[in-house]
Amino acid sequence: MGQRKIDIHAHILPPGWADLAQRFGYGGFIRFELYAPGRARLVRDDGTVFRELQENAWNPERVLEDMDRHGVETMVVSPVPVLFYYWARPQHCYEWSQFLNDYLAEVVAHYPGRFLALGTVPLQDTEYAIRELERCVRQLHFPGVEIGSNVNGKNLDDPSLFPFYEAVQELGAVLFVHPWEMLGRERLQKYFLEWLVGMPAETTLAICSFLFGGIFERFPRLRVLFAHGGGSFAFTLGRIAKGYEARPDLCNVNSVQHPRAYLGRFWVDSVTHDPRAFRFLLETLGPERIIYGTDYPFPLGDLEHGRLIEELQLPPEVQERIFARNALEFLGLESSRAGE
Amino acid sequence: MGQRKIDIHAHILPPGWADLAQRFGYGGFIRFELYAPGRARLVRDDGTVFRELQENAWNPERVLEDMDRHGVETMVVSPVPVLFYYWARPQHCYEWSQFLNDYLAEVVAHYPGRFLALGTVPLQDTEYAIRELERCVRQLHFPGVEIGSNVNGKNLDDPSLFPFYEAVQELGAVLFVHPWEMLGRERLQKYFLEWLVGMPAETTLAICSFLFGGIFERFPRLRVLFAHGGGSFAFTLGRIAKGYEARPDLCNVNSVQHPRAYLGRFWVDSVTHDPRAFRFLLETLGPERIIYGTDYPFPLGDLEHGRLIEELQLPPEVQERIFARNALEFLGLESSRAGE
Repeated sequence: MGQRKIDIHAHILPPGWADLAQRFGYGGFIRFELYAPGRARLVRDDGTVFRELQENAWNPERVLEDMDRHGVETMVVSPVPVLFYYWARPQHCYEWSQFLNDYLAEVVAHYPGRFLALGTVPLQDTEYAIRELERCVRQLHFPGVEIGSNVNGKNLDDPSLFPFYEAVQELGAVLFVHPWEMLGRERLQKYFLEWLVGMPAETTLAICSFLFGGIFERFPRLRVLFAHGGGSFAFTLGRIAKGYEARPDLCNVNSVQHPRAYLGRFWVDSVTHDPRAFRFLLETLGPERIIYGTDYPFPLGDLEHGRLIEELQLPPEVQERIFARNALEFLGLESSRAGE
Repeated sequence: MGQRKIDIHAHILPPGWADLAQRFGYGGFIRFELYAPGRARLVRDDGTVFRELQENAWNPERVLEDMDRHGVETMVVSPVPVLFYYWARPQHCYEWSQFLNDYLAEVVAHYPGRFLALGTVPLQDTEYAIRELERCVRQLHFPGVEIGSNVNGKNLDDPSLFPFYEAVQELGAVLFVHPWEMLGRERLQKYFLEWLVGMPAETTLAICSFLFGGIFERFPRLRVLFAHGGGSFAFTLGRIAKGYEARPDLCNVNSVQHPRAYLGRFWVDSVTHDPRAFRFLLETLGPERIIYGTDYPFPLGDLEHGRLIEELQLPPEVQERIFARNALEFLGLESSRAGE
């Protein structure tokens, strides 16, 4: 069977849902439109298509076919960021988060050992977010939740989020930080640049917000994974470190350590689409902090399910770490099989 | 004496200038305030300090001391981006650009062989920009000009800039693209992040605008250098290429080639502050496309003047390329000594 694989970054969504604009009385939500067998699209209020979907975006049976074909034992599925809805009224986002999380829990329960889930929370309201986080962990038995890289433009160092981080830490849960609502997106409207340039910058900003915001210091047991190899962070670390050294008056207002001291403090997934960039990450963050992930099933995903990594001919123990052991450690499942 | 060094990225500014708010009748300009011997600051209208300066920011004699101490034969000096003033009325920015360029020309003339200059142009008005570009090249004998990574929020693929690129190409001049007015800066106000996260993203956006905007195709003889190692471009190229492959409907509206086909088509400077990132650049862009630069004399500059590169023990011909030959080729001075 080859290398055991646990995919830490994959998305799935329910096959349809109620009309939220009608239900909540205002717009901005995404509709799921099944328009042909095995074909659907996510559609905005104004009728523009956010994304075309194939059945592997909502039907676990189709996902399992892909997993079996590529030797993926377990997929850790999380919601699609466009459905975070942090901009909606807290009570409504809370209801919606429950709906998404219940769906994820069903998928996990229905295919024992094949799926794990990271839930979503209404992060615009810390109290609701903690309530749903607790439900995710205690009732639905999720190892943690996915959050966006900002909350309606607030970066992740915002003190309003501290009680949430505290709760995550106390529950022994994990955070998966996914870019969304990209900075400067009014300048990224062409050529898919919101995804190609905005997302890596957004993730870099998220890591820097944790780092310079003192979040890693304040919540020493918080386990955090950043999407897409951590964006540009590892590559621009020289510049970030130089900033810390040259302008501590600006960078170090929270009495944090040197940026390089935080290497090893967080995880990133392996989505780089580039063997050289992957090796760079491996050398910079170390083999214990990169977790195999694909961003399946979307166009910018690794739809070859880790072939890039397999072809690198890494030492077996490194490959095993990246494909499985790091995920288990991150998720706090070291001593058991995933999903058992 | 060791390796001959030509620094492609350094800044210098005049030791003071007229009160522009008074002269032009509106605000937004930067004042130069000499407040102690050898100490000055750039100050905004509202009295906030944009940057503290030491004498090596405006006095070529001080710069030469540093150059001699570190074995730098020639510095290619360009204006500080905050002084581009693309937001001002075109006629005013045109006058101001002439003032800055005349100053640069004086520095070059006064120290033969030690300085070269890249001028500035009022890029908000293509006609004025071309007029000042022609003066820079024909009268002041500059090899080219520096431009910002956007013009009042317009990316560098904007068709209004095409006649300017045409003129640059026809004159055999070069462009040095420097990040400024960073995308998403409302979210980058803490921890120096506008410089640490915004600048690399801004430069990546500039390269992608040239690439996906078809500028490299449309102006095949245009020679362009991007600051700070090209931002995050090289590291995120896998994602950018994946976008082109997966969503040509979004990325390839201008019938461009695969992103990797443009490696070798443009130059970047060596400002990475990280030996591993520098090597990554070298492997990705090739040894002919990286030019030694420092961003001297500012806090995020390489104030050790290339020691990082010297310590890498590169093959002598590669080191010679990076420190001198690539600059001469880029600037179109292959057959002569710089400045002669």
